[in-house]
Amino acid sequence: MSCVSGVLHDDPLAARVVRVRLDFVAFLRLALGQLNPSVGDLAGNAAQVIEAARQASAIGADLLATPEMMLTGYPVEDLALRPSFRAASIAALAGVAAELETSGSGDLVVIVGYLDETAPDAAGHVRPLNAAAVLHHGTIVGRYAKHHLPNYGVFDEFRYFEPGTDSLVIRVRDVDVALAICEDIWQDGGPVARVAEHGAGLLLVINGSPYEQGKLDVRFDLIAQRSREAGCALAYVNMVGGQDELVFDGASLVVDSAGQLISSAAQFQPELFVTDLALPDAPTTRTLSGGVEVKVLEQRPFRPLSAVLPRIAPRLDDLEEVYSALVLALRDFIDKNNFPSVITGMSGGIDSSLVMALAVDALGAERVYGVSLPSRYSSQHSRDDAKELAERTGLHFRTVEIEPMVDAFVTHLGLTGLAEENVQARVRGTTLMAISNAEGHLVLANGNKSELATGYSTIYGDAVGGYAPIKDVPKTLVWELARWRNAQAEARGETPPIPPTSIAKAPSAELRPGQLDSDSLPDYAELDSVLDGYVDHDHGAIRLVADGMPSDLVDRVLPLVDRAEFKRRQYPPGTKISSRAFGRDRRLPITNRWREPLAPQQSAENQID
Amino acid sequence: MSCVSGVLHDDPLAARVVRVRLDFVAFLRLALGQLNPSVGDLAGNAAQVIEAARQASAIGADLLATPEMMLTGYPVEDLALRPSFRAASIAALAGVAAELETSGSGDLVVIVGYLDETAPDAAGHVRPLNAAAVLHHGTIVGRYAKHHLPNYGVFDEFRYFEPGTDSLVIRVRDVDVALAICEDIWQDGGPVARVAEHGAGLLLVINGSPYEQGKLDVRFDLIAQRSREAGCALAYVNMVGGQDELVFDGASLVVDSAGQLISSAAQFQPELFVTDLALPDAPTTRTLSGGVEVKVLEQRPFRPLSAVLPRIAPRLDDLEEVYSALVLALRDFIDKNNFPSVITGMSGGIDSSLVMALAVDALGAERVYGVSLPSRYSSQHSRDDAKELAERTGLHFRTVEIEPMVDAFVTHLGLTGLAEENVQARVRGTTLMAISNAEGHLVLANGNKSELATGYSTIYGDAVGGYAPIKDVPKTLVWELARWRNAQAEARGETPPIPPTSIAKAPSAELRPGQLDSDSLPDYAELDSVLDGYVDHDHGAIRLVADGMPSDLVDRVLPLVDRAEFKRRQYPPGTKISSRAFGRDRRLPITNRWREPLAPQQSAENQID
Repeated sequence: MSCVSGVLHDDPLAARVVRVRLDFVAFLRLALGQLNPSVGDLAGNAAQVIEAARQASAIGADLLATPEMMLTGYPVEDLALRPSFRAASIAALAGVAAELETSGSGDLVVIVGYLDETAPDAAGHVRPLNAAAVLHHGTIVGRYAKHHLPNYGVFDEFRYFEPGTDSLVIRVRDVDVALAICEDIWQDGGPVARVAEHGAGLLLVINGSPYEQGKLDVRFDLIAQRSREAGCALAYVNMVGGQDELVFDGASLVVDSAGQLISSAAQFQPELFVTDLALPDAPTTRTLSGGVEVKVLEQRPFRPLSAVLPRIAPRLDDLEEVYSALVLALRDFIDKNNFPSVITGMSGGIDSSLVMALAVDALGAERVYGVSLPSRYSSQHSRDDAKELAERTGLHFRTVEIEPMVDAFVTHLGLTGLAEENVQARVRGTTLMAISNAEGHLVLANGNKSELATGYSTIYGDAVGGYAPIKDVPKTLVWELARWRNAQAEARGETPPIPPTSIAKAPSAELRPGQLDSDSLPDYAELDSVLDGYVDHDHGAIRLVADGMPSDLVDRVLPLVDRAEFKRRQYPPGTKISSRAFGRDRRLPITNRWREPLAPQQSAENQID
Repeated sequence: MSCVSGVLHDDPLAARVVRVRLDFVAFLRLALGQLNPSVGDLAGNAAQVIEAARQASAIGADLLATPEMMLTGYPVEDLALRPSFRAASIAALAGVAAELETSGSGDLVVIVGYLDETAPDAAGHVRPLNAAAVLHHGTIVGRYAKHHLPNYGVFDEFRYFEPGTDSLVIRVRDVDVALAICEDIWQDGGPVARVAEHGAGLLLVINGSPYEQGKLDVRFDLIAQRSREAGCALAYVNMVGGQDELVFDGASLVVDSAGQLISSAAQFQPELFVTDLALPDAPTTRTLSGGVEVKVLEQRPFRPLSAVLPRIAPRLDDLEEVYSALVLALRDFIDKNNFPSVITGMSGGIDSSLVMALAVDALGAERVYGVSLPSRYSSQHSRDDAKELAERTGLHFRTVEIEPMVDAFVTHLGLTGLAEENVQARVRGTTLMAISNAEGHLVLANGNKSELATGYSTIYGDAVGGYAPIKDVPKTLVWELARWRNAQAEARGETPPIPPTSIAKAPSAELRPGQLDSDSLPDYAELDSVLDGYVDHDHGAIRLVADGMPSDLVDRVLPLVDRAEFKRRQYPPGTKISSRAFGRDRRLPITNRWREPLAPQQSAENQID
């Protein structure tokens, strides 16, 4: 339960560190505030920090760490570039420091992530900093700026921040604690290398690390590796909550210097979690071996407390993890944007059924409104399944026949074919928006990733909405999640929310008689396999075929994806769960004549002379 | 007309360079290919390079330079990350080299911008390069990778490219020509500093520099400064054409070592432009003074040719410049995406009138379709003005009464108030999309920047469209452009396209009886002034008030802008003309509780100890 346990492991680095220090052990009660800030809500976020500090103080913690950019929320995007917002963040930090002292938590050392800025350069220009402050007894006793700035995937931190260059080590209860922020431990070198050199007792990393499938394992392996490299215990506190397309999963944890898990917090839930650590105590000088100045913080004398037993939160299984991510992201989008309720069209199909189940789990049935919007092409089972889902979940349900409006368009404009099909979807979209305008609900769009990829949706029709909960969920995963949710209900002795017929039936948009998705699209299992390669892994056609996908399938799917870019640009935001979500994660031009060739075009025979 | 003219100026650096070399003059015929590539169209872009080379050879040019990323188009965004696309770019470059030789242009030295990649690192990873190749006699004789990567505004080049580190100097007709790419001359140091050290005869810069208002002056001042710093002539070739939200303005030019303009190409038009230069000839060794290896290219013996007179293209005035940018961007979006025609709703108001005038100028009246979509609240002058604009321009015109569809919604859903207002706009949007589905036109959205900023539009209503030509044009500039276009027509003895009453009348959305924009929004001149400060310059409320704007106005406008972010995310793309366009240029969260305070919140009394 500390670096001392490192001697049990045969990792040579950990063993070495422990051996030289085994006689000198300090005790530290560490609180990690796995909190859920809102972007821009400086007062609300500050209040969360102060409340966490009050609780941490009450339980006798010596040190509280909160997530990256806790005070501002994260990511703040171009708000970082606005001088007024930076000034407010800096002022709010000072306010938190003062209030911690006056509210009786001043003796606790508190690490707060916030937005700072550099001193003016010769031309008077300042640059934003992604920073952490150390607050103690009413003052800011130290600051650290993130060294490594992620600039890939959804991240644009070279746009926003000046990288930091200085290390920060604070001495708390005789333990030297080195600070780092998120990406600092994802890149080789930098703070971790310095910590190893300096011989700190604890590496404390504050994070805003968004969820994606499979990332928890990657993250844990990395943390374990860095703790061994640093030769000390590592505490990792992550943000929790939804912010537009991102959802932060929490899952904060502490490992010892051998990378062994000591304690961990829940996924997708706010939690103040406390770990008692026995750590190597610090050298007696104010300077570590690597020359870094140590800020020594004097606290009230140590008083014995009964030990906190380390807790390791149970890990969610893969489907529960995705489902929980979708629920939390949806809830936070609705609540942080102050919407009272949501509404969507219920077709009886699997996509709208899953969205409604998610919405009920996120908000409670009383805040969820479903509308059945049948046309002449809607089957009886569609009407019945929509109604049944409403009955199973208890959400508000109504039926609005769209024939009168569709007839008006078809007759007055003389529509046929695709124009007639699409007008049905657009009448549904307009109807939902009209109800939204009248009653104040946010409209949810029900499209999944497979549809979004191939453009199998009607822009301004089924694509209307303020949020799209399953836009990053491939169709095959939609079915899996629906089955999982029903099975979970059954296991709990509850009514499964989704009608089994909605899961079992063949998907159809029902915009013309007898229409099936399979008329226009390949089998979803095959489609999703191609999309995973092309969209999520940037594999070109030649590679996909080499990987065993049928060339006619590849040749059919890829142009659909390329041509649907314009629709995706106007699609509502939705929760990222994959390694490459549509949106900021995948940036392609609309005007784009590149079409993946199935065979190499021309060999590069010419070489540099 | 060369470095020699530098002695006429009293710039000490230029004078020094010229003095030491005055006896040694070489003559170079330089062709700059101000071309218009399409992103992803490797074959088409290659054909443009080959045709430009054919013309340049025919006129006896020694050296042809084409824009940044000419072969792939620019910006390619995440296509840079796709191995198949990089391989195709590299193969296409080899193909161009070979074809130049076989088509008889092999003796011409050709500089081509393209997408390359680094050699694999130890882990086998490669990174994309924004590169320029030197092609000569069928082979790639040199490569240069951009050193400075822009990562602000609309640019994300740290995401895409590995920065280059090596200089490249080629010797053509005894002139040492140093290469640079775009941002390389916008940052201090780097290639320009090395060129000065090396003593090259010409600094050749290939560019993909997008237009914005006022940028031409900034760009020219920079080029003049860099030529003086480098101590040699500077040739600047820029791309021309539209690519999604960006429009490249061309305006390529050559300056002497004192920064004096020698020749310049037109704005917003493709042009192969040729300049005869008398330049300091090169030292006899293959190495420049700074130690950079020089690639010496042997060409056919010099043959005397009658001199090309340098041409300085007339500069467009401010309004003609913006108008030309909007026309070119619209034309290229439509043509590069293979749309036969465009359609939009014509309200008789100034926004749709300007959009139609732009569309007719971009595509010709035969490719432009206008639809008057009157409701019961539409005034007679609206109907008349729409019809008159159609008559003045010759575009295809029809009227579709929206009452039957609106009635169906209002009656069937029982709509009143805002829901009833918005349903009119959405019926119009659905009608335009239905005609688009039936006839194949791309729908244009007519919103201006002032509306987009304040959210004064109906999502899925007037906001529908595949392109939004004036989305970055503030309302006050909409009027100016309309007046300018009419005056231009009058000066040419043509019929002004826009009915004067459309310019003169008070703006109204006509969604309820007697409605005026001024019921909901401040005076547009005041509004645009606040928006310029807040949106284009990131000035917070305190600064805006300090700059003299009324605090009640600031307090009214800023929350409108903040709250409309969700609408902007789903708005169609449109041409960037300002220093901060909505879109990739300004990235703000939707979930954002930050509201600009009118007074400082709290002073930062606490300091670092």
